[in-house]
Amino acid sequence: MHPPRRLLLLLFLGLLPAVAWALLAPPRFPGPHARPRRRAGTGDGVGGYEFETRYFRQRLDHFSFPGVGDEEFFQQRYLVGRAGGWAGPGGPIFFYCGNEGDIAWFAANSGLVWEAAPRFAALVVFAEHRYYGESMPFGTKDKAYNNSRSLAYLTAEQALADYAVLLTDLKRNLSAQGSPVVLFGGSYGGMLAAWMRLKYPHISVGALASSAPILQFEDIVPHTIFYDLVSNDFKRESLSCFQTIKDSWNELDEQGNVQDGLLKLSKTFHLCQTVKTTGALSDWLNSAYSYLAMVDYPMSSDFLMPLPASPIKEVCRNIDKQPEGTSTLERIYAGVNIYYNYTGTVECFDLDDDPHGMGGWDWQACTEMVMPMTSSEDLSMFPRYEFDYALYDDDCVKNFGVRPRPRWISTEFGGHNISSVLEKFGSNIIFFNGLLDPWSGGG
Amino acid sequence: MHPPRRLLLLLFLGLLPAVAWALLAPPRFPGPHARPRRRAGTGDGVGGYEFETRYFRQRLDHFSFPGVGDEEFFQQRYLVGRAGGWAGPGGPIFFYCGNEGDIAWFAANSGLVWEAAPRFAALVVFAEHRYYGESMPFGTKDKAYNNSRSLAYLTAEQALADYAVLLTDLKRNLSAQGSPVVLFGGSYGGMLAAWMRLKYPHISVGALASSAPILQFEDIVPHTIFYDLVSNDFKRESLSCFQTIKDSWNELDEQGNVQDGLLKLSKTFHLCQTVKTTGALSDWLNSAYSYLAMVDYPMSSDFLMPLPASPIKEVCRNIDKQPEGTSTLERIYAGVNIYYNYTGTVECFDLDDDPHGMGGWDWQACTEMVMPMTSSEDLSMFPRYEFDYALYDDDCVKNFGVRPRPRWISTEFGGHNISSVLEKFGSNIIFFNGLLDPWSGGG
Repeated sequence: MHPPRRLLLLLFLGLLPAVAWALLAPPRFPGPHARPRRRAGTGDGVGGYEFETRYFRQRLDHFSFPGVGDEEFFQQRYLVGRAGGWAGPGGPIFFYCGNEGDIAWFAANSGLVWEAAPRFAALVVFAEHRYYGESMPFGTKDKAYNNSRSLAYLTAEQALADYAVLLTDLKRNLSAQGSPVVLFGGSYGGMLAAWMRLKYPHISVGALASSAPILQFEDIVPHTIFYDLVSNDFKRESLSCFQTIKDSWNELDEQGNVQDGLLKLSKTFHLCQTVKTTGALSDWLNSAYSYLAMVDYPMSSDFLMPLPASPIKEVCRNIDKQPEGTSTLERIYAGVNIYYNYTGTVECFDLDDDPHGMGGWDWQACTEMVMPMTSSEDLSMFPRYEFDYALYDDDCVKNFGVRPRPRWISTEFGGHNISSVLEKFGSNIIFFNGLLDPWSGGG
Repeated sequence: MHPPRRLLLLLFLGLLPAVAWALLAPPRFPGPHARPRRRAGTGDGVGGYEFETRYFRQRLDHFSFPGVGDEEFFQQRYLVGRAGGWAGPGGPIFFYCGNEGDIAWFAANSGLVWEAAPRFAALVVFAEHRYYGESMPFGTKDKAYNNSRSLAYLTAEQALADYAVLLTDLKRNLSAQGSPVVLFGGSYGGMLAAWMRLKYPHISVGALASSAPILQFEDIVPHTIFYDLVSNDFKRESLSCFQTIKDSWNELDEQGNVQDGLLKLSKTFHLCQTVKTTGALSDWLNSAYSYLAMVDYPMSSDFLMPLPASPIKEVCRNIDKQPEGTSTLERIYAGVNIYYNYTGTVECFDLDDDPHGMGGWDWQACTEMVMPMTSSEDLSMFPRYEFDYALYDDDCVKNFGVRPRPRWISTEFGGHNISSVLEKFGSNIIFFNGLLDPWSGGG
């Protein structure tokens, strides 16, 4: 089977609902991506946490010196917690390394940082990642995302340098040069936190990197690991549920090929419009399973979707409990309905919602963040996906006019033999991963 | 007194004559700079060491992703030792981080690397720094040095990334991914070696950074330290010598102000042409003392100039031994004659030799490598030099169209509280400094 044509949004969260992070990881352009669902209002508080919104004049390109007339700057947004209780100069600073989305959304969903801060009398700072939220080079998102020249500086290295410069300036302004900085981040933000501790050891004393798949590059971990872990989350709940899902892809294809099959499929899945291919539908199912694995918390949550506690258990229960004679695809619908329509208020589903279009993470996946992911039928309940690098490269050139550098991340940040590097060099980096989280394979 | 108007060439060497490194460090644009005196021939060996010359296609800008049509590459030269005796894949690699000059010159003058390699069955690699020697972006030095746009990528971060990419590729091609890499470097190259170990801990197991003034930034070390150390090297040989030099600057100025004073001065110092100001002459004297401090080896050497063992002792002996009644400036001439004319073959001196013009190091000093240096009359035998940052900045804008970022190096690489950072994070970095070496103050 070919990989899905449409990019999938995959989202994952840490195990603590209070520390919720998001990412987009399509099988062909996999990688973390935040999906901002709530924007910061004009007020200075989100999710019950109070902060001040500030802006810092940041240099677009830290690593070259264009002449005086050619220099570019942008306003980087950052949030400074109002909780009070900071011990003042010398007291710790908790610094969240913003990832690929609106920083207010991360601030609202990173309860751990806010809840831990008062205990340590720490100042909370959430810094927005360049090219996301309001931190747009060239003034507007349209201009920032105009073409490969305007996007050229959307890289992890530049973002880390932003954080380093911001932190250094902030500490100087607060006369807090002696303050220990603890970095936080989840998903791609967790990768940034870990890398920042490695690359800027003079700026922080430690990092808490949650669900940070820093090893999901090249062949450092098996390419199948992500989908195998998602699959395993279903298998551990119910073998028959796993098998039903595994069988469904062929049925989907078969039904798509018969007369009026797509119409019938669209009815089975209560789609608002008849699908033109089965690909869009299987992408939609793939997304549901992958997201479910990332938010399979033991308590109910409302991060991406309103969901019950242990949602995979619920999905499988719905798949399994249908009366005998229910078709495989009807069972599948009953299952994903838990994910897409737990509140029961959705009348029909629209598969084409891609709020990001060719957004920032897609660019990052086409430049540095080349995370090969495949699905083999051995352990996976997904169809076979291959990783065809030549095709990946072609698509990036076609879509963005840019050629990926698949080996750059491991050259710049390491990854191979990471344990011996960390043992001998890095320190104070906590990588935490829920074992149900499919990103734990690369984390 | 105003700082010298002309840039001075300061050169420093490690304590071992075999490990000889050079740098240019003018008081107003101070910093290390190599002065290539011997170029590699077309043959593959210099200074008795045999190597193969190779070229690697290197990316001009590692930290951004210009579109497919906008990417720039250049050929980076590197030398691979022919000595044989490499243990092969798995065996160590000794990697010299090239500094601001022709790599063949560093290879010829880094005997330590060559001499140690056979004992460890190590492969020797000398990599040339971008924008120096033959490693010119845009094809030629004229094009590379054309303006601030072409020079924009002459930075330490880009050079380190060059080394990381080259080493990673080299190891893969040699199937030597498991080979431990030991980094070497002196002066600016030593700074690069230390920074590389810090920033790319996954790529090397250790670094030997000789005379690497990584702390000569901002106010990390006292701005006076360099000239105080030079002065101390003279004072320890002879207090009267120190005092004669200290007194000479005023005499120079006074004599420069009287009728025919410049003509008389030019005769005293055997200059080929009459100087137009005393500034050029005092720069020339400053250079001699600073260089002498850097090459004050206990054995004779021939790195920059043919010199006797303990040259400062010889200079001071010549200054002190002149018959009573010899004027201060005549004593000074007798002293520096040791440095500039030890072989006795020079008939007259030309002060205007500036083989580098506004070369690469001057650009680096006007961008990242802002090393403030001053001279106060407390401990120094030099005239008072102030560090006027506004003037420095203006000159950089005027000369290169670029504005320095004086705080960038410590943000990117650290420097403040370096010992606690290194203690808690870095490992296997040997900083060695001769205590007579005036760069030891920032090393």
